[in-house]
Amino acid sequence: MDDCIFCKIVRGEAPCAKVYEDSDVIAFLSIPPNNKGHTLVIPKEHYETILDVPEEILCRVVLGVQKVAGAVKQGTGCGGFNIVQNNFRTAGQIVSHLHFHIIPRVEDDGFRFWPSTKYDEGEIEEWRLKITEALEQRKL
Amino acid sequence: MDDCIFCKIVRGEAPCAKVYEDSDVIAFLSIPPNNKGHTLVIPKEHYETILDVPEEILCRVVLGVQKVAGAVKQGTGCGGFNIVQNNFRTAGQIVSHLHFHIIPRVEDDGFRFWPSTKYDEGEIEEWRLKITEALEQRKL
Repeated sequence: MDDCIFCKIVRGEAPCAKVYEDSDVIAFLSIPPNNKGHTLVIPKEHYETILDVPEEILCRVVLGVQKVAGAVKQGTGCGGFNIVQNNFRTAGQIVSHLHFHIIPRVEDDGFRFWPSTKYDEGEIEEWRLKITEALEQRKL
Repeated sequence: MDDCIFCKIVRGEAPCAKVYEDSDVIAFLSIPPNNKGHTLVIPKEHYETILDVPEEILCRVVLGVQKVAGAVKQGTGCGGFNIVQNNFRTAGQIVSHLHFHIIPRVEDDGFRFWPSTKYDEGEIEEWRLKITEALEQRKL
């Protein structure tokens, strides 16, 4: 897409600190990073979210994530890492081109996980049904 | 593994609110949830992190994530969702059995993203080299 910054990076029209590239996937350092070495892995083709991308491309992207994540861990010496992939604005997606974050984590980096909530008695079954019924509908 | 809670769920020895199952993958509601409808997708076989899982199984799992995520969005009516996958204790991995979180998000749910940092002048190239050199080493 003409006005997509990640498409511009893929086409070489915008700069990036590239760490990996193959026929379908490109990976580069995130600016700004959550921690140093924070890397993004994207398909070269433009898809907005994980719901839009064809299965074969999604597999290629996640295998790129696996490969690059091992190098991020080894290269940065981090103790662990989070894979994060945000879908739609409500979930904090800023660039509307599917991307996986690889975020290196170090002890005491101060990141806090999101708060938990809880289900009232019997409520979990209601939520289970909402999802299984949607799965059934989507098969039709 | 005998003492892994997710392996027990796979074997039917521990209860879960299951939403999806195929030959390689199972998905169930997270307890506790970050938001209601928070779902976990796991391989039936035990692997600790994304670095350990064979490529074919990883593809099967991420295709399960894609399928279930569409149903989570439709079924819960959320505005967006985050896919999160934590590797190693330093990154907040609690159960040592590879799992992808699908976290439905709603407007004003109060979740805050992690703080950003920044690279000093020229520093991004140092971090790029750490990762690309690790990629080269891992090919050998």
